[in-house]
Amino acid sequence: MAHIDLGMDESLFPGIRGLMRFRPETAAPLNALAEALLRAPNSLPAGERELIAAYVSRLNACRFCGDSHSAFAAEQLDGGMALVEQVRDDLDTAPVSEKLRALLRIAGAVRESGLKVTIDLVDAARAHGATDVEIHDTVLIAAAFCMFNRYVDGLGTLALDDPEGYRESARRIVEHGYIDSV
Amino acid sequence: MAHIDLGMDESLFPGIRGLMRFRPETAAPLNALAEALLRAPNSLPAGERELIAAYVSRLNACRFCGDSHSAFAAEQLDGGMALVEQVRDDLDTAPVSEKLRALLRIAGAVRESGLKVTIDLVDAARAHGATDVEIHDTVLIAAAFCMFNRYVDGLGTLALDDPEGYRESARRIVEHGYIDSV
Repeated sequence: MAHIDLGMDESLFPGIRGLMRFRPETAAPLNALAEALLRAPNSLPAGERELIAAYVSRLNACRFCGDSHSAFAAEQLDGGMALVEQVRDDLDTAPVSEKLRALLRIAGAVRESGLKVTIDLVDAARAHGATDVEIHDTVLIAAAFCMFNRYVDGLGTLALDDPEGYRESARRIVEHGYIDSV
Repeated sequence: MAHIDLGMDESLFPGIRGLMRFRPETAAPLNALAEALLRAPNSLPAGERELIAAYVSRLNACRFCGDSHSAFAAEQLDGGMALVEQVRDDLDTAPVSEKLRALLRIAGAVRESGLKVTIDLVDAARAHGATDVEIHDTVLIAAAFCMFNRYVDGLGTLALDDPEGYRESARRIVEHGYIDSV
């Protein structure tokens, strides 16, 4: 049970979904931010952006965000859930492009602290073809999930027992986006 | 110098201000979130909400956010900067209400990890009169500054050398809010 009374059956609205219904005033900018970062047109494919979100959420041990964004990434990446799990288990050997690997390393540093992002990490991403906007967006996606993870767990919300349950949300978000999927 | 080329004189647009000009697509929801959390009508006074933001930012060692939101809190609290510094130096003895002290303890836990927020911390805040919305907003303010701090430092932006320089921004934000002050 969540730490506060959300006034609804939490099993129907797990994780951030119940919080967004509880406080629509903050849900609107949070959904707009997710849409801008994860779904808006971008030279980084949506699946790669979701993979950054899933990677950070897993490192933060946030079950709801980790499982849901893993499902959203898997739905949009050719490698599917197997690739998402390879990245989680060993970033150094996972079969992703060197550019994406360098961006994921930046995301991992951001998760610890903004002060951990070194110019060497940034230069490595740039050497593999990352643009300034892609580096910017990677830092902000990682930072945003440090927020979403703390929000969801700090209020003690439920995660689904079966991660397969997120596949329906994944299809809804791929089709309709974050703003219309709450 | 920032880790990416912001295309402007960074000394004129330090910290998040340069990032917001570089990427207006994400600036819009970020400013809307700050406005909803820190300035919209709320039973928690704006000065107390800014104090939570400043407290978390200082713990995250983010100079730009720590100095700027300390100035924004000081501008709106009867105790001014002296109170902001007492909270930073020793939360246990700072002359704030027991309710605000309990909310700041929740914010400090969120900063470490959402999973560090215990039902005891939440019950203590409730025992001192905090409402569910106030507890929700405290968790989300603390979580949001874990994002803002990482964003500002992860991209290596400048902070002002003289924290006094934030007083003008403080007056502008108190008068006009976040959305029209960028």
